[in-house]
Amino acid sequence: MNQPISILGAGLIGSLLGVYLKKRGLDVHIYDKRSDWRSQQVLSEGRSINMAISYRGWKALQKAGLKEKVEAHTIPMYGRRIHDEHGVTYFQPYGKNDEAIYSVSRNILNQVLLDEAEKEGVQLHFEHKVDHVDVSKNSIDFSLKDGQTKTCKSEVVFGADGAFSSLRTAMQKQMRLNFRQEYISHGYKELTIPATEDGAFAMDPNALHIWPRGNFMLIALPNQDKSFTCTLFMPFEDEKISFDKIRDEQDVVTFFQTYFNDAYQLMPSLTADFCQNQTSALVNIECYPWTVNHCTLIGDAAHAIVPFYGQGMNSGFEDCFILDGLIEKYGTFSWDLVFEKFQKMRKPDTDAICKLAMDNFKEMRDKVSDPRFLIRKKIEAKLHELFPYDWVPLYSMVTFTDIKYSDAYAIGKVQEAVLDKVMSDPFIAQKWENLDYHAILDNVETSRAV
Amino acid sequence: MNQPISILGAGLIGSLLGVYLKKRGLDVHIYDKRSDWRSQQVLSEGRSINMAISYRGWKALQKAGLKEKVEAHTIPMYGRRIHDEHGVTYFQPYGKNDEAIYSVSRNILNQVLLDEAEKEGVQLHFEHKVDHVDVSKNSIDFSLKDGQTKTCKSEVVFGADGAFSSLRTAMQKQMRLNFRQEYISHGYKELTIPATEDGAFAMDPNALHIWPRGNFMLIALPNQDKSFTCTLFMPFEDEKISFDKIRDEQDVVTFFQTYFNDAYQLMPSLTADFCQNQTSALVNIECYPWTVNHCTLIGDAAHAIVPFYGQGMNSGFEDCFILDGLIEKYGTFSWDLVFEKFQKMRKPDTDAICKLAMDNFKEMRDKVSDPRFLIRKKIEAKLHELFPYDWVPLYSMVTFTDIKYSDAYAIGKVQEAVLDKVMSDPFIAQKWENLDYHAILDNVETSRAV
Ligand SMILES: Cc1cc2nc3c(=O)[nH]c(=O)nc-3n(C[C@H](O)[C@H](O)[C@H](O)COP(=O)(O)OP(=O)(O)OC[C@H]3O[C@@H](n4cnc5c(N)ncnc54)[C@H](O)[C@@H]3O)c2cc1C
Ligand SMILES: Cc1cc2nc3c(=O)[nH]c(=O)nc-3n(C[C@H](O)[C@H](O)[C@H](O)COP(=O)(O)OP(=O)(O)OC[C@H]3O[C@@H](n4cnc5c(N)ncnc54)[C@H](O)[C@@H]3O)c2cc1C
Repeated sequence: MNQPISILGAGLIGSLLGVYLKKRGLDVHIYDKRSDWRSQQVLSEGRSINMAISYRGWKALQKAGLKEKVEAHTIPMYGRRIHDEHGVTYFQPYGKNDEAIYSVSRNILNQVLLDEAEKEGVQLHFEHKVDHVDVSKNSIDFSLKDGQTKTCKSEVVFGADGAFSSLRTAMQKQMRLNFRQEYISHGYKELTIPATEDGAFAMDPNALHIWPRGNFMLIALPNQDKSFTCTLFMPFEDEKISFDKIRDEQDVVTFFQTYFNDAYQLMPSLTADFCQNQTSALVNIECYPWTVNHCTLIGDAAHAIVPFYGQGMNSGFEDCFILDGLIEKYGTFSWDLVFEKFQKMRKPDTDAICKLAMDNFKEMRDKVSDPRFLIRKKIEAKLHELFPYDWVPLYSMVTFTDIKYSDAYAIGKVQEAVLDKVMSDPFIAQKWENLDYHAILDNVETSRAV
Repeated sequence: MNQPISILGAGLIGSLLGVYLKKRGLDVHIYDKRSDWRSQQVLSEGRSINMAISYRGWKALQKAGLKEKVEAHTIPMYGRRIHDEHGVTYFQPYGKNDEAIYSVSRNILNQVLLDEAEKEGVQLHFEHKVDHVDVSKNSIDFSLKDGQTKTCKSEVVFGADGAFSSLRTAMQKQMRLNFRQEYISHGYKELTIPATEDGAFAMDPNALHIWPRGNFMLIALPNQDKSFTCTLFMPFEDEKISFDKIRDEQDVVTFFQTYFNDAYQLMPSLTADFCQNQTSALVNIECYPWTVNHCTLIGDAAHAIVPFYGQGMNSGFEDCFILDGLIEKYGTFSWDLVFEKFQKMRKPDTDAICKLAMDNFKEMRDKVSDPRFLIRKKIEAKLHELFPYDWVPLYSMVTFTDIKYSDAYAIGKVQEAVLDKVMSDPFIAQKWENLDYHAILDNVETSRAV
């Protein structure tokens, strides 16, 4: 009999991968350094952190038979609701036909996935911290909670252990691994808008709320308990407005009153939250190769991206979908082949989403409140409406289709050049509704043919 | 009294830095994981590995009062001697006026520097392996040979511990360190051409010998014992000709007879050397920031480069020179200021030499035997001869001056564009001696003014 399959990390990607592999009839074990967090219904900080699922995520959940189970815990967001400095808001739909992204609590999602994995027969091992992996022998050293250590041999080792992956660290010592880690100047802090006193949402729940303020911004996503989880993105230091300039509770209040006053009115525990919740860093990680012998990286361990496209988890779920497709095709006796195909096929796409996420950071930060940008978005929306198959905006390709990220990136570049030209007209604000939209589309076709 | 200054790594950079800092009146301690290799006169493998010192290295050695001591151990190389497949050789001088780079044994150079450091009063601690550095407290944990551990607090910690720096690893865990490591497809193996039976050099000793063969190459540098140390650079795998294709002694012989027959005739211990000596990887490492609190990286720990410009050590020595200049200016009580200035000033230059080293890899590999490239070099040499101050070839700026690497890089790009234009003439081979060289120079001036 074969040795078991080990998955390092019981996070979102590791647990979905566990479900997939178990369904292929394999003996699957998932290890995580944390203790089983499913029992702790209320998290220590009493906070719920949420994230957005979009098309690629759903597709992968569906193939694993998990779509309905997850859906029950989500809230659709049909567009961005932009809040300006005076509290005036306006709504930018994400797409046509009620296309939406879905807010879900990270913990609940993880719990659904882990429960399913366990139900399918995956063995979960908590409080198993990976210390080292010998990649030539697929052998893993763990340290357990009580200070004991344990070594396991596996048929295959999956590193789904996140941005600071222990498998990747081990690979870095045992092979020529190309590796790049880049922190951005911005960090983030999570805050809360609770339900109103009569138990309702304090704002429109079916939107992703954004307060864009140039070099910093606040966003908010709805939770099923009628609260919103807010995230403040801001430079750590070295800027006029940055985390290090906010030194005490009074600074917090002044800062929020000045820039986010409508949100401020909805945040009774702001100062306490601000001081208690840590400021976290944001990192972009790329590496290659992902695989050596029978070990492979997957999810954030292979490609951690900044969260500005909401695609980190979605791309990790898509990794699982693609890998499972290769196992379907080549079977579970040709791991070398499966892994080699997986990394070759997938790497250009995760590189593309890395770049897109970084670009979208700049867009959300600088442009969403710029009137010219709004006209540009309207022109795009109109193009999409007129030519639903021939002009799909970049955001839609990434979020509402499974076009390869690298193709979306390339098409997006062509569209960008075409729109740059359209926008170069100084009277575009007056003219945009009466443009020759067919001619614009022709430009795309020509550029693509070249 | 202040706490001592700790330098991690007693390699080339750490030991020169020790001399500099001691001369500034500081209490300097150097730690290295290796045992004191100065006592082992003949290295275990019986091999001597050598490297080239050029202008920046000499300048730094001179300021430390070490130029004469080192000079005694070097052999000048006035140019490249190219060997073609038939054993025909031709000579390309490096510059005019007998400009040379100097071959020196790595061990002897390290020994001279360490002896000097010790003589000046630097305390050397061998068999001290750095396990961890707490960068907020400047506190270093060592493990010693006998399994014991030791913790030292310092005023300042210098990480001169090479490409796989333990200080950098510690920084990576404790701060937002941007980091990139890129292995190239090629590895290298060191081989030997011994002195002839009557105790003479087997080839011209005053040249760096190169056997360029497209995707792989052999080079040789002279040693004072009349031997040459050869280095074979070649892809590890996935190519028609690569290390993994050479599987036994017969393969070695066939390969050398085919591509390097003139060298082969001079290598009696080739097959044994080839099988015994390991194949090593080549890595490019960039990171930033270099400094946090009172800790700073220097030399390969801050910027490891591929060896194709012979500038790794030279740039590390220049680091020491520049750092010492800042200490001269700001004193030894403002380390924060010194380190901040150091990294801001130096980083663009080490980035530039990283890129240049990679470019030179491609040049040495692909072009040095290309007749058009030779004409190009001749045109450059002529420009340099005619306008010694206004046209200094890139290689000369890097190797024979202390122009900032980043300036050399920028000027090099301008020269490249000008020469590309000159070379685009299909009859250049016939014409090159009679070109209007003043007009060519004018092109440079115009481009630079733009
Ligand atoms: C602020 C923010 C917002 C985001 N929003 C979105 C969003 O809206 N949509 C989206 O798609 N993505 C989003 N992401 C990205 C998403 O969070 C990640 O892509 C996703 O969590 C990656 O899952 P993973 O399982 O690969 O890694 P992780 O979620 O990091 O899980 C790794 C697991 O491995 C375990 N582990 C780590 N080291 C060891 C070890 N040595 N031994 C044993 N176990 C170990 C950890 O305990 C953890 O359980 C966001 C990210 C951030 C930071
Ligand atoms: C094939 C090749 C040819 C080269 N040729 C040239 C050339 O011609 N000219 C040139 O200028 N450069 C050349 N270089 C580059 C040059 O070798 C390096 O730039 C130089 O050695 C860097 O010196 P360093 O002191 O920073 O690091 P190193 O020489 O790597 O020294 C680091 C020291 O730190 C010690 N150390 C490491 N980790 C620990 C730890 N955890 N605890 C304690 N001690 C530790 C090591 O034992 C070592 O003594 C070449 C490099 C290669 C690979």
